[in-house]
Amino acid sequence: MRAAVMRDEKIVVDTVPDPEPRTGEALVRTLACGICGSDLHALKHADLMAEANREAGVPSVMDPHRDIIMGHEFCVEVLDYGSDTAHRLPAGTRAVCVPILVRPPAIYALGYSNDVPGGYAERMVLAEPLLLPVPDGLAAEKAALTEPMAVGVHAVAKSGATERDSAIVIGCGPVGLAVIAALRLRNVEPIIAADFSPMRRKLAQLQGAHVVMDPSEGSAFTAWSEQSRTRPPLVFECVGVPGVVQSIIKEAPPQTRITVVGVSMEEDRFKPMIAIVKELSLQFCLGYSVEEFAQTLAAIADGTIDVEPMITGRVGLDAVADAFNELAQPDRHAKILIDPSVL
Amino acid sequence: MRAAVMRDEKIVVDTVPDPEPRTGEALVRTLACGICGSDLHALKHADLMAEANREAGVPSVMDPHRDIIMGHEFCVEVLDYGSDTAHRLPAGTRAVCVPILVRPPAIYALGYSNDVPGGYAERMVLAEPLLLPVPDGLAAEKAALTEPMAVGVHAVAKSGATERDSAIVIGCGPVGLAVIAALRLRNVEPIIAADFSPMRRKLAQLQGAHVVMDPSEGSAFTAWSEQSRTRPPLVFECVGVPGVVQSIIKEAPPQTRITVVGVSMEEDRFKPMIAIVKELSLQFCLGYSVEEFAQTLAAIADGTIDVEPMITGRVGLDAVADAFNELAQPDRHAKILIDPSVL
Repeated sequence: MRAAVMRDEKIVVDTVPDPEPRTGEALVRTLACGICGSDLHALKHADLMAEANREAGVPSVMDPHRDIIMGHEFCVEVLDYGSDTAHRLPAGTRAVCVPILVRPPAIYALGYSNDVPGGYAERMVLAEPLLLPVPDGLAAEKAALTEPMAVGVHAVAKSGATERDSAIVIGCGPVGLAVIAALRLRNVEPIIAADFSPMRRKLAQLQGAHVVMDPSEGSAFTAWSEQSRTRPPLVFECVGVPGVVQSIIKEAPPQTRITVVGVSMEEDRFKPMIAIVKELSLQFCLGYSVEEFAQTLAAIADGTIDVEPMITGRVGLDAVADAFNELAQPDRHAKILIDPSVL
Repeated sequence: MRAAVMRDEKIVVDTVPDPEPRTGEALVRTLACGICGSDLHALKHADLMAEANREAGVPSVMDPHRDIIMGHEFCVEVLDYGSDTAHRLPAGTRAVCVPILVRPPAIYALGYSNDVPGGYAERMVLAEPLLLPVPDGLAAEKAALTEPMAVGVHAVAKSGATERDSAIVIGCGPVGLAVIAALRLRNVEPIIAADFSPMRRKLAQLQGAHVVMDPSEGSAFTAWSEQSRTRPPLVFECVGVPGVVQSIIKEAPPQTRITVVGVSMEEDRFKPMIAIVKELSLQFCLGYSVEEFAQTLAAIADGTIDVEPMITGRVGLDAVADAFNELAQPDRHAKILIDPSVL
């Protein structure tokens, strides 16, 4: 099959062996796969990522010096199953799936594995019990956004947000947009969103932010304080660049809960004294539960999360390398989807 | 009156004007006042402390270039009141008090103020409504430990500890010992406590730690993992030195809640990626509520917190400077109390 392969810190298109489903696994065709900011990080900082995962005790860490087929935000069509598998979904069914493949004792993070392909390829193998059928009428490219939007649903759940809360979202890339959408599901108001990019601010409004800010023109915390709320805001760090956590620590009012969703692979610095005096809390988070993933699919299907405006580009495998370059410019795109059938 | 004054980064004994109680304030005689680790920090790093407080937006920040009479862990005897004050407690009553004095628009942190004296002096003025009478039979020097022990009661409350939790306490100075005592109040078990000092480990056992560790001989997290608990431990950072938070981030199991009680005034570094992969949380905390302060006094009075072993030294004002030097050696003392009546 054809695949866009991460090799020697580049994305190259190559022909690779088709994956073979084992017992309990489905062979699927990739209909749409999003390019994630973490994929851009991985291409540039694969060594750092592998090192951090190793330090964190994550099993089956990828080896950046061997081929990796990335892609963990996918919608697929079931083609076939391995032997002795339930065939729960008929061939031809469209599905999404948490990007994890368990082959005891190994656990593969699909999209960051040397041994099984992610969604930047024509075919994949997925765990049959984790397949969620995509409701009729929901386009595959929208269903592919279940994964990135589930990140927001999980982060907001971790924050403990209720309708009594207000929120500040720092960074309106796909992670920040997913957080805004999830905050709206919980009726958090107002949601103040900050990003340097006019396009991202526009998308933040479309996802339901009540106030959008250009950080070069003022502080989101000042905008929040004008709302005269007594309860401190929930703050979401959705940038993932060193220094942002400390800037939030410095500006946040006392008792603020800060949820760190942006993934920074570099060492960062902070001043604990300021966090102590204000009794701040930092909740780091990653991923989502299977239930949150299913809830997110349902919310996209029934329209309570509208992902349409976030899809700003569509490419075939041959254009993935160019798409990575495009995505490095924050004002051009939110989410670019790969359709491996496009030549 | 006589006082031990922080002047030019030294502790000197001097005669200063008696404080005068205003309306709503009591004039009191200091019976006992503990020397806090923060006082040692303040003497060495007063500029850093003032800067951090200013950055954190704390009002009435002390000026380290002017005299400061420290001391915020005190037990006093009521002498008199300012005009038009309720006289709720008769003269002669022994009392403890949250170390805050409000004189609108100023709020003074007693012990870190240029304008009102802390407990390193013969007399103080305190807010009459905040005075808590010390039960008969409770020695003044034990009552003086209400303040440092309340820090532990508050930190443990912030951690959300229940009897289903286990805990790891890193650092067994007075803060760590207070945390251990408060964990025992909530029936947390086991409590694993780590400190390099044999004396502090002994005190940790006396406060109720179930396992004590020398960090040079092994990891508290390894000791914890031998307890076969499924729920992650509550971890308390009670050291307040750069690098400790990151060492906890590195060793903690997934989903661990880390409560930062140790006050570090220097910039610190951490690796967010590791905290993200493990979904850790950091709760910074400081101080206590008035209710927690009163609960702590009650627990000391009824013996559910036994502070006796923590009192390892008693000095008059003339020996405060020497006591600071003694306390810089972690294996000599836990808490040294000042009795300003001792000549």
